[in-house]
Amino acid sequence: MFDETDHNRMRAALEEARLAFDRDEVPIGAVLIHRETGEIAARAGNRTLEQCDPTSHAEILLIRDMCKKLGVQRIPDYDLYVTIEPCPMCAAAISYARIGTVIFGATDPKSGGITSPVALYTQPQLHHKPAILSGLMSDACAQIMKDFFARKRT
Amino acid sequence: MFDETDHNRMRAALEEARLAFDRDEVPIGAVLIHRETGEIAARAGNRTLEQCDPTSHAEILLIRDMCKKLGVQRIPDYDLYVTIEPCPMCAAAISYARIGTVIFGATDPKSGGITSPVALYTQPQLHHKPAILSGLMSDACAQIMKDFFARKRT
Repeated sequence: MFDETDHNRMRAALEEARLAFDRDEVPIGAVLIHRETGEIAARAGNRTLEQCDPTSHAEILLIRDMCKKLGVQRIPDYDLYVTIEPCPMCAAAISYARIGTVIFGATDPKSGGITSPVALYTQPQLHHKPAILSGLMSDACAQIMKDFFARKRT
Repeated sequence: MFDETDHNRMRAALEEARLAFDRDEVPIGAVLIHRETGEIAARAGNRTLEQCDPTSHAEILLIRDMCKKLGVQRIPDYDLYVTIEPCPMCAAAISYARIGTVIFGATDPKSGGITSPVALYTQPQLHHKPAILSGLMSDACAQIMKDFFARKRT
């Protein structure tokens, strides 16, 4: 299902997750792809600690920055690769921003907003429902989270 | 159930909604109350158009600004008054910020995240569930939304 291009994009998202890990942030990373050119248009990792902002998840940072850069509220020409299933806040923001496709690595049964019972994209409240693909490099995406929380517990 | 203090706070939120209306933004307003002093600590209305940011809902702006001001990620000493039921994105952000009580005016069966089938605060994904009170000045809170969308359709 996934080709080398997909893997390269998720590798870039994982790099952002690792940078987040090094900042002591929950290690989730994401990249925005401009669909037409296929290029990585923006990349981000969580910065809730650094920015003192509980909404500064990787996905929100990307949406905020790209919309501001383009002077728009919607970015339907972009796809999002993110290491972990988006939470309900991010899943809703992704819908509002009209992102075309979301490709995530590992599911997050504990805090996810898509595959968990929250299942935001099955709700009529969310008018735009992005296409969803999952499982790309899921082991690596999940492992960095496990490492982070294991370190927190010691 | 609601006293004069509650009404004054919702009047302040409604003023923010009216200012949003005048900016051609979806007219939702909100205020943050410092529980101990009872004072209005911050106020905001939607600014998604102005800021080119689909996440710039009144509630998100308040959380972002107050957390930054205090240098924290959680503001459990604050309550939120908002004219309309928060959407799923805002409902999740309110939970992450650990806001104590949410008092909203009118329900939003179309896009709400609390009373609608989304019902975020019934989900185990959201660890912190704020206390919820609703119906405070709901007619006035709903009317300004109706006026806004009626104007949009003409």
